[in-house]
Amino acid sequence: MRVALDAMGGDRAPGAAVEGALLALERDAELAIDLVGREEAILDILADRKHERLAVVHAPAVVTPGDSPVRAARENVPSSLHVALRRVRDGESDAVVSAGDTGAILAAAMVVLRRCRGVSRPGIAVPLPHPGGTTVLSDAGANLHPRPVHLMHYGLMAAELAKVHLETEEPRVGLLSVGTEAGKGTDLVRKVDGLLRRAPLNYVGLVEGQDLFGGTVDVVVSDGFTGNAVLKACEGFAGSLGRALGGSGASTSGAVDPASLDFSTYGGAPLLGVRGVVVIGHGRSGARAIASGVLAAVAGVRHELVQRVSEAVWSMSRLARAARFLPSREGGEGK
Amino acid sequence: MRVALDAMGGDRAPGAAVEGALLALERDAELAIDLVGREEAILDILADRKHERLAVVHAPAVVTPGDSPVRAARENVPSSLHVALRRVRDGESDAVVSAGDTGAILAAAMVVLRRCRGVSRPGIAVPLPHPGGTTVLSDAGANLHPRPVHLMHYGLMAAELAKVHLETEEPRVGLLSVGTEAGKGTDLVRKVDGLLRRAPLNYVGLVEGQDLFGGTVDVVVSDGFTGNAVLKACEGFAGSLGRALGGSGASTSGAVDPASLDFSTYGGAPLLGVRGVVVIGHGRSGARAIASGVLAAVAGVRHELVQRVSEAVWSMSRLARAARFLPSREGGEGK
Repeated sequence: MRVALDAMGGDRAPGAAVEGALLALERDAELAIDLVGREEAILDILADRKHERLAVVHAPAVVTPGDSPVRAARENVPSSLHVALRRVRDGESDAVVSAGDTGAILAAAMVVLRRCRGVSRPGIAVPLPHPGGTTVLSDAGANLHPRPVHLMHYGLMAAELAKVHLETEEPRVGLLSVGTEAGKGTDLVRKVDGLLRRAPLNYVGLVEGQDLFGGTVDVVVSDGFTGNAVLKACEGFAGSLGRALGGSGASTSGAVDPASLDFSTYGGAPLLGVRGVVVIGHGRSGARAIASGVLAAVAGVRHELVQRVSEAVWSMSRLARAARFLPSREGGEGK
Repeated sequence: MRVALDAMGGDRAPGAAVEGALLALERDAELAIDLVGREEAILDILADRKHERLAVVHAPAVVTPGDSPVRAARENVPSSLHVALRRVRDGESDAVVSAGDTGAILAAAMVVLRRCRGVSRPGIAVPLPHPGGTTVLSDAGANLHPRPVHLMHYGLMAAELAKVHLETEEPRVGLLSVGTEAGKGTDLVRKVDGLLRRAPLNYVGLVEGQDLFGGTVDVVVSDGFTGNAVLKACEGFAGSLGRALGGSGASTSGAVDPASLDFSTYGGAPLLGVRGVVVIGHGRSGARAIASGVLAAVAGVRHELVQRVSEAVWSMSRLARAARFLPSREGGEGK
């Protein structure tokens, strides 16, 4: 099991990646990590903490946010992200973890790894822990103008993640709206509701924002704009509360750890619908979050997440074509 | 100063309304409240706690969620909500507070009170308190399919609320998106961004979910679907945290009060863009939340919120027509 870790992605790179890699290696004896990035910078931080299951893969190029991510991916730019993705494509590594820019990871993964059959728009799935368990939110920002079938695919794909991640056989899937009564919500919501009712899912219908943390559903399907806003708002709320609690002394009493409220410690969000396990870490990821992301990628590989996701979407596409309830263009090859 | 309080709206009606009214009367010596609803039910709870500034206005009809709110409003149904709104229309009360169904309040207020000149879709503004102050989110669910000009109006109207509520002369207004760089977001976001840049506002550009609680802006403009989802998600997050903290004993140490995390205690959300002060309480409102809603309505009346909102939108509409950057249909009379 080899994970390619983008050492240069994220606000705290490459330090967080190096420390995170060492943490993850401690936690899994069968894991090997390729730290991909500027060799000199990585070795500087690593110093004498060599590890027999840790390799450094030199990737000198720096891709700046102004560069076209698609062109960077197509032109074989030797940036840490692209080298890591190509390692997975070429079978040299089993998964990629990066805390770099989400848009860049998405674009590069679509070009280098390509999409699963039947998927036209990959989606980001974020597992949100809460006192009642964990709920997966998808899409969390990959697709801002989704068609109804895209959201149905997010339901199918995130349900596979929930099966793997939460070990529930029949994850309860809900569709995010502004009320739970049938018909509540936008035109998009009503169309997706119709599709999800016909999908081979344990679909419970419309849910509201509070259901993300209520333990009432295992998967919440959302358009990427709303999913992203919801996620960041909760993150901001947790952060402000963490600051308030930190100042109050409650944290030092041991009753509440503000760090546990910070989504940056939760680890990564799998990008579902591409032909390889890709885990996107929060830009602010520290070593703990990077290590969690690496272990999430390991779980994805061990449980054959990509095959499961791919099969779920493809069998739905065949089913839909057979029943003619989706135009064939939408159910077809995602190219 | 007379506030008409819908005694029958909300999950905890009429008890919460009666207790909330008594609380509010204690806090403001110039306030009188008309409790509107089924007289018998109200008097049962009130018992011998008569108050010289508290009147009961009998409104026997019950409007169920299945009824058409527009028809109920047009046909002069004597329900508590409609009677309360008509009192404001007829100058018998200065403001309405209801914790009833948001859609019903919106529809009834638009029919009974009518819209301010230039406003085609009223919006709900929710003041969110956080350690760095208070940030107003609008729209929080009144308008699920907004046109760009609607969102510009929410910015103008919520800025007036922020001036009154937060006592800031030039409230900082941001537009909710998935990134802060220019051009990030949906097509709608880009169009609204263009409009807000030309509005007479202290517009700071695109913001993200975390800015709702970061103290970086005073007003966050959002489409109603996303605003509603964000609000309810944070509410759910706060609730789950409150349960976790409650169980940990942290609350009893006095350091953290889970109730302070519950949006139901925050009081009401003004409905902006109708010709009267209307404050919508959370459906789960208890007495404290009702009292806060009543006091928010009082502040709205004292600060002439409706006149301010109306003037802000109407002068923008004239400006826009003069500059020809809005089609006259969108800048025109809201009918």
